[in-house]
Amino acid sequence: MSSSMLVVTAHVGDFVWRCGGAMALHAQRGVPVHLICLSYGENGESNAAWQGAAPVERDAVKQLRRAEAEAAAEILGVASLDFYDLGDYPLPESPESVQRISQTMRATKPAVVLTHPEHDSSNLDHCRTYEMVLRARMHAMAPGHGADHVVPPQVLCFEPHQSELCGFKPNLLLEITAVWEQKWQAMQAMPTQRNLWAYYERVALQRGAQAGRRAKSAGTLYGEAYQSIFPAVVPAFVE
Amino acid sequence: MSSSMLVVTAHVGDFVWRCGGAMALHAQRGVPVHLICLSYGENGESNAAWQGAAPVERDAVKQLRRAEAEAAAEILGVASLDFYDLGDYPLPESPESVQRISQTMRATKPAVVLTHPEHDSSNLDHCRTYEMVLRARMHAMAPGHGADHVVPPQVLCFEPHQSELCGFKPNLLLEITAVWEQKWQAMQAMPTQRNLWAYYERVALQRGAQAGRRAKSAGTLYGEAYQSIFPAVVPAFVE
Amino acid sequence: MSSSMLVVTAHVGDFVWRCGGAMALHAQRGVPVHLICLSYGENGESNAAWQGAAPVERDAVKQLRRAEAEAAAEILGVASLDFYDLGDYPLPESPESVQRISQTMRATKPAVVLTHPEHDSSNLDHCRTYEMVLRARMHAMAPGHGADHVVPPQVLCFEPHQSELCGFKPNLLLEITAVWEQKWQAMQAMPTQRNLWAYYERVALQRGAQAGRRAKSAGTLYGEAYQSIFPAVVPAFVE
Amino acid sequence: MSSSMLVVTAHVGDFVWRCGGAMALHAQRGVPVHLICLSYGENGESNAAWQGAAPVERDAVKQLRRAEAEAAAEILGVASLDFYDLGDYPLPESPESVQRISQTMRATKPAVVLTHPEHDSSNLDHCRTYEMVLRARMHAMAPGHGADHVVPPQVLCFEPHQSELCGFKPNLLLEITAVWEQKWQAMQAMPTQRNLWAYYERVALQRGAQAGRRAKSAGTLYGEAYQSIFPAVVPAFVE
Amino acid sequence: MSSSMLVVTAHVGDFVWRCGGAMALHAQRGVPVHLICLSYGENGESNAAWQGAAPVERDAVKQLRRAEAEAAAEILGVASLDFYDLGDYPLPESPESVQRISQTMRATKPAVVLTHPEHDSSNLDHCRTYEMVLRARMHAMAPGHGADHVVPPQVLCFEPHQSELCGFKPNLLLEITAVWEQKWQAMQAMPTQRNLWAYYERVALQRGAQAGRRAKSAGTLYGEAYQSIFPAVVPAFVE
Amino acid sequence: MSSSMLVVTAHVGDFVWRCGGAMALHAQRGVPVHLICLSYGENGESNAAWQGAAPVERDAVKQLRRAEAEAAAEILGVASLDFYDLGDYPLPESPESVQRISQTMRATKPAVVLTHPEHDSSNLDHCRTYEMVLRARMHAMAPGHGADHVVPPQVLCFEPHQSELCGFKPNLLLEITAVWEQKWQAMQAMPTQRNLWAYYERVALQRGAQAGRRAKSAGTLYGEAYQSIFPAVVPAFVE
Repeated sequence: MSSSMLVVTAHVGDFVWRCGGAMALHAQRGVPVHLICLSYGENGESNAAWQGAAPVERDAVKQLRRAEAEAAAEILGVASLDFYDLGDYPLPESPESVQRISQTMRATKPAVVLTHPEHDSSNLDHCRTYEMVLRARMHAMAPGHGADHVVPPQVLCFEPHQSELCGFKPNLLLEITAVWEQKWQAMQAMPTQRNLWAYYERVALQRGAQAGRRAKSAGTLYGEAYQSIFPAVVPAFVE
Repeated sequence: MSSSMLVVTAHVGDFVWRCGGAMALHAQRGVPVHLICLSYGENGESNAAWQGAAPVERDAVKQLRRAEAEAAAEILGVASLDFYDLGDYPLPESPESVQRISQTMRATKPAVVLTHPEHDSSNLDHCRTYEMVLRARMHAMAPGHGADHVVPPQVLCFEPHQSELCGFKPNLLLEITAVWEQKWQAMQAMPTQRNLWAYYERVALQRGAQAGRRAKSAGTLYGEAYQSIFPAVVPAFVE
Repeated sequence: MSSSMLVVTAHVGDFVWRCGGAMALHAQRGVPVHLICLSYGENGESNAAWQGAAPVERDAVKQLRRAEAEAAAEILGVASLDFYDLGDYPLPESPESVQRISQTMRATKPAVVLTHPEHDSSNLDHCRTYEMVLRARMHAMAPGHGADHVVPPQVLCFEPHQSELCGFKPNLLLEITAVWEQKWQAMQAMPTQRNLWAYYERVALQRGAQAGRRAKSAGTLYGEAYQSIFPAVVPAFVE
Repeated sequence: MSSSMLVVTAHVGDFVWRCGGAMALHAQRGVPVHLICLSYGENGESNAAWQGAAPVERDAVKQLRRAEAEAAAEILGVASLDFYDLGDYPLPESPESVQRISQTMRATKPAVVLTHPEHDSSNLDHCRTYEMVLRARMHAMAPGHGADHVVPPQVLCFEPHQSELCGFKPNLLLEITAVWEQKWQAMQAMPTQRNLWAYYERVALQRGAQAGRRAKSAGTLYGEAYQSIFPAVVPAFVE
Repeated sequence: MSSSMLVVTAHVGDFVWRCGGAMALHAQRGVPVHLICLSYGENGESNAAWQGAAPVERDAVKQLRRAEAEAAAEILGVASLDFYDLGDYPLPESPESVQRISQTMRATKPAVVLTHPEHDSSNLDHCRTYEMVLRARMHAMAPGHGADHVVPPQVLCFEPHQSELCGFKPNLLLEITAVWEQKWQAMQAMPTQRNLWAYYERVALQRGAQAGRRAKSAGTLYGEAYQSIFPAVVPAFVE
Repeated sequence: MSSSMLVVTAHVGDFVWRCGGAMALHAQRGVPVHLICLSYGENGESNAAWQGAAPVERDAVKQLRRAEAEAAAEILGVASLDFYDLGDYPLPESPESVQRISQTMRATKPAVVLTHPEHDSSNLDHCRTYEMVLRARMHAMAPGHGADHVVPPQVLCFEPHQSELCGFKPNLLLEITAVWEQKWQAMQAMPTQRNLWAYYERVALQRGAQAGRRAKSAGTLYGEAYQSIFPAVVPAFVE
């Protein structure tokens, strides 16, 4: 079985802004990309949906965000998509949720898991997601929880909203120019958060410019930044 | 509506030692100061109350500490005072408590929240309070939890007992000389913790001396130290 | 009553690899050494037990690990041994477990508690144990939880599996050459984790070599590394 | 005498990209803004000047960069401008340069000094500048070096090229929308580094967006981020 | 030969405020205490001496501070005292000064060296002293610089003026109540810095109170705080 | 021209213990490996050479260490070897040395530079080497210092003697089993430091064991640990 990638986010929007490029890039290369959204972000990250003239129900907001996420995921080439609907602001943690993530890990055997960074004072849902992922990783690698236990995957944290406040220190830059068009379309498939479109386009351009210092390519580049949690075992430093 | 200040502490004594000056100063300026004490500190921070010759009941200790807190709060000019009575050493966290704090935030719309710092190995009640405050802040700013959602307030951490052990790095010094007399009286309104009087008088003098290096004033100065969690948006650096 | 030492570990194996030398050394000096194992490590740290040809039950694995731990503890001279059987990968936290640890603290009045370090991204059971120990320490020192409250003990963290990934920065090296033979036997009393024997023998040799730079002794040295959480009150720096 | 602001940069371009908004804003408010450029950035930050068809002399590059800096400084309203011409990549440190900076501090008595952050692995000229500024600050406050010694100024570090790699953690956001047009013109007065125009326009937009979360204003905002080195003495937290 | 202690400070006052208790305590126990003052602190830490009505020469200030240091050192029981007269604010570093310190290390073979901490943004003389001490330590332990090379001593950093700004995290508290009277007299032997008397008396009381939480003694306690740079090799954790 | 690797060490022994595996591995793959030893380590890292019965001259020690280094370098397949003979304990820094390193960078255009980590309290020669390398990197990339300027190389820090004390946090593990035999022979070509043979064999085994958790291979593994200073631009996370 080929390697796969698992993405776990706190809210539906996160996967688009933060790692949509990595998802499209790997899907394009034939790597199955699995996605788990722990909540619809209906309470704290769907502001536009609540601000209309007429009152709106939480269920309607959730439906709306789910539809947006499905559209975006399809554009990015996601292999499977799972909504846990745990609620947000704050996102609750439970052993059941941890176990459910671990079961996906056992089923998909990802080589790498993309998720939020460890610290984020302005968004504790993100930290909780990180912690649930690490806990699920332990569960998934334990023989005592089933013979289908996995080789523990690398964990890569994607970029938070204000990187410096989260102690986010990227050590990997992914050039995503080739799939930028898809990422941009996926962003636009989320009109509820249209206030973030320009912001994350600029993030992609900044990371692209930083990557371009070493890259050979000319022209406008787009990028994404990641921080690895565990040491990578590499065969060499120079090809 | 004018701006307000919210103070959230783990135990009843904390607000006096750590931010009594800020409370008195802002109350004097007409800023409504709201106070939440998550516990009475009856188990771990009321030692004198348990050390008499006769046995004492926990409820009596709680009554005693509540009366002291009410007296101190009145001296400092507090606008409202709420006791959650969650118990201490350790202080439990629950979604209900978080939600209750968030409701006060929605009702009082504070520009700033004063609370404990993030880390304190010798007093985990303090860290839990910090975390509950940040979680409540998320809840309070989410439109999905009600149309009365707030602009997220700045969070300022006040000084812990042993600052270096907590990674406390103050970036704000508040000169409280003008209200020192009130703070001192509020401290004395808490005879159960009289063992801390001299200690926190010295803390105030040290912070005053540090502030005085830049201040214009002569004579003895008193101060309090704070660490801001979020960047402050300022109109200029020099007046 | 003489001082005692309390060791609290997440899984049964931890005490042998990480602080078996300290345990044997203090037991030999007449210091009562008490041990709490929060889980049997049956799920995630008993891999060999699950890999046989025939299927095995979780209870059988737990029995096996318990027997190994009892044998190792006896070799090291442990005064008391308590198994909480909380389960592992992940280890759950509860107020009841915290309270149970605190009762042992009240009963044994340790001068020092040995446990896991605060951070370990690859093994959150270790971090949880650390947090439970600090919480139990608060509980144990609170007069409101009983008149048998204790002077808060020093907490020393022992070495994790990959020290740099855990931010483990040792400030104490214990030379354990005199009890190495016992530690080695205790390690061998845990054949389920025989894959760790050589690894932790090398850890002991590295720490011994580091200690030996200052030590007077010649020959092969063995050591263990620790990080203290609270400042130590010392009578002098030079004898 | 009114307060003033001093800006010290390693290379001529730095003041425009990193704190041009703060300079224009304070100049507009009548605060004298003094500028020291330790080098022309002729070796490492004038790449376009070296890449033409015909060979070019270092002196010609320095002249070019000096003219650009003078033009940009005038647009921003700088009160005085001093070029030290120390050379760059790397920038040398000397007691004489430190003393020269300190003399400007004594002459201008700044309330605040803007300079590079402490760490920058990819540009050590920036770290050296920071260190020279702190050293000059000590020199300037010492009575033994002259009776015109100063009250030690606050030091604010402006944003480096890749903030996370420098451990840059901003605690102050300055909204510069009102002077953005000037900053943009000053940027364009430096065509030798036109490759940075779009990059720093995006930086300004990101910082503006971050500031805007609290600001009242609508429309596009521009901002700059700063990190203070010393605690600020404040009269209150809420107006 | 018995063990000795070496103290290296940037300015003459430092040894009194920061480690006068440790010096007196060890001298009293018969440990030879050697002292090196790299400068007289004549420029930046002798403000009172410059503020009289009549003009004063730098040499006169240096004479004054030297006399004060000699008096204080005698009170504390110092075995030898060396003034390098390097100048201050800023203090220059040179290979010759490093070598001179190393020669004292070779001559006195200290078990422990007390000096300033590694970081201090407001006083770079302190950081330079730390660095010179570590460099001298390397020189002193190298066989190639002479057969009298030493076992590398432990380095303990004493408390800076604003501990949190320096990242100072004490792991050792020394109770100095028994020698407080001497330390207080030594402080008063330095009237040029009388503005620091009360400040450092309070520092001693705070550190005493922190030490007292574990100490057996009643009554007012005095203390000093230290941070060790290298791991200590200890024979046991519990006596 | 194919990529190359540059190794810069403070003392002659360092390249063998810390990155001999990486050197052999890349040489074997046809990558030219260039080596600069800033000193012979004659003063502080050649203890055995000084401890014989007869007195020895510094020049003789240097000759001895040079011969050992040449032998080891040949075993590892080094393409070029340069001795700067700057002296050690401490190693001096100078603009000339920085420039000389930069010239080698310009001549060899390395894709990666291996050197010591940034911090090492017990060996400041290592920190100085790191700083000189980063400074040389700036020099080498500046067009103003010559048209042969380079694309700035990645910098990888190899393992110091006590990783935790240096804040060394590896994010890359290199499996060197295939070249272990060569590394071991190179170590043995340095009998002056034979006291380190067993220590660094164990380091290699520990890093091999850590790498092996993910590696497919069975049997004894050997490894080396590295920390990257700059973000790596990668084409994908999963092949």
